[in-house]
Amino acid sequence: MTTTSVGIVGLGLIGGSLGLSLRAQGREVIGIAQREETCQLALARGVVDVASTQLSRLASAAVIFICTPIPAIAPTVKQLVPHLAPTTILTDVASVKQPILTAIAPLWDNFVGGHPMAGTAAQGITAAQADLFVGAPYVLTPEPQTPAASVAQVAALIESLGARLAYCSAADHDRAVAWISHLPLFASATLIAACEAEPEATVLALARQFASSGFRDTSRVGGGNPALGEAIARANREELLRVLYRYRQTLDGAIAQIEAADWAGLEQWLTATARARPDYLQTNPDSP
Amino acid sequence: MTTTSVGIVGLGLIGGSLGLSLRAQGREVIGIAQREETCQLALARGVVDVASTQLSRLASAAVIFICTPIPAIAPTVKQLVPHLAPTTILTDVASVKQPILTAIAPLWDNFVGGHPMAGTAAQGITAAQADLFVGAPYVLTPEPQTPAASVAQVAALIESLGARLAYCSAADHDRAVAWISHLPLFASATLIAACEAEPEATVLALARQFASSGFRDTSRVGGGNPALGEAIARANREELLRVLYRYRQTLDGAIAQIEAADWAGLEQWLTATARARPDYLQTNPDSP
Repeated sequence: MTTTSVGIVGLGLIGGSLGLSLRAQGREVIGIAQREETCQLALARGVVDVASTQLSRLASAAVIFICTPIPAIAPTVKQLVPHLAPTTILTDVASVKQPILTAIAPLWDNFVGGHPMAGTAAQGITAAQADLFVGAPYVLTPEPQTPAASVAQVAALIESLGARLAYCSAADHDRAVAWISHLPLFASATLIAACEAEPEATVLALARQFASSGFRDTSRVGGGNPALGEAIARANREELLRVLYRYRQTLDGAIAQIEAADWAGLEQWLTATARARPDYLQTNPDSP
Repeated sequence: MTTTSVGIVGLGLIGGSLGLSLRAQGREVIGIAQREETCQLALARGVVDVASTQLSRLASAAVIFICTPIPAIAPTVKQLVPHLAPTTILTDVASVKQPILTAIAPLWDNFVGGHPMAGTAAQGITAAQADLFVGAPYVLTPEPQTPAASVAQVAALIESLGARLAYCSAADHDRAVAWISHLPLFASATLIAACEAEPEATVLALARQFASSGFRDTSRVGGGNPALGEAIARANREELLRVLYRYRQTLDGAIAQIEAADWAGLEQWLTATARARPDYLQTNPDSP
């Protein structure tokens, strides 16, 4: 274990959890938050060794995790780089990669794109937990020109979190997460919005009253942070549209089977979805 | 508490849980299963006092819950009624009500339609639990001609389970559950089926590898029992199509906003879904 100090910009759920986990391994963590209040909270909860609202405090960090919301990543890097030595490695945690790489390329060479596939329903530093990344996929999307030694250093940090390290291209990443993260968000939000469009007040009231665990689970990601949903759609627009078109086409197929009263076909289709689902639950099985 | 004996036909998750809960209150429960093996399991787990594969064993029951799959309900009642005294009350637990009422009307007058909004990911008698209905909505859909005393007797049993008793018309019930139970199932199955249509093997493999808790929750009800999904679509076809058309229209609206890069509009829409969702979580809040 080295004692290299690690910087974290943005002390929310992901940044806070990174701090807790890295400090538990004895690393020095320097955290930057926009608000002094968050700095105090981070110190009180043991998320960081040093907290500041000033990016200049990161001059001594060897690796810096940018954990801000997506729209703030490039502006943050722009403000940060005048304070850094050329050897400093930057990495991010955004759920889209191609637009981030494109935006950072002219600003800093020594950048390794990353995306931890971990989260909870709760948000913010108060939801941070040291074991958030244990067993979860954590993807790195190095480019051909990314320094191999920098990739190796970020990879070592990520493996130290207990995460399942994976590599792929930024394009493949953005296409894959469009399917399993961004499409679920919009399919789920559409469910809530469609229900709200029920014209009969009696039926709408009964629907709200009768909604059970099936509705709760299917609507969860569609009822999350609106700014995050907007940022994802904006950043991964092309891939999101691609999967939404396919989703609409698949929906049309199911509707056509029900219209045609093709019950054997419908049961066959549902059998295929039931059989396919476990392939997507390797790291997140259903609770017992 | 009376000692009236209660019959249960079909000893799966719902029938088994009814048995456990009613017996815990000191009622005599007579259970009927198709297979002798299930009868033995029901006796061993304390789900019933008496178990049999013969419907004639229910001659002495005052109230009988029909807990078979939807397509078996009317055939079961047809076979059952020759053995019953005219005062015997029948009730069911199917997730659609209008087609059941229509099918039972010519067979038995003393029938009270019912639907407990309770379930778990697991199925079958081994998943049965005495507290399955505690706090869950349990709807009765009596018709104008249903004997009031029969409704009251079923209502008393349901309240004794700790369930939240509600009444509505069968038509309103079927329309409301189309929104919050049947639409989620098909929106969720469509998600899985759409992902599976990804043409690039590399991306599909990454999608499966990266799928996290968001995908797990959104896909849960679409990866359930195919026969149940088919039976629901068949029995509630008209209402299901009605909500699917609205869902498709709502989806088209979201797609149009993303196509138009109307980010302010999209965030407004996502803000509305986030605000609406808690209205549907009154009895099933998110876990902490």
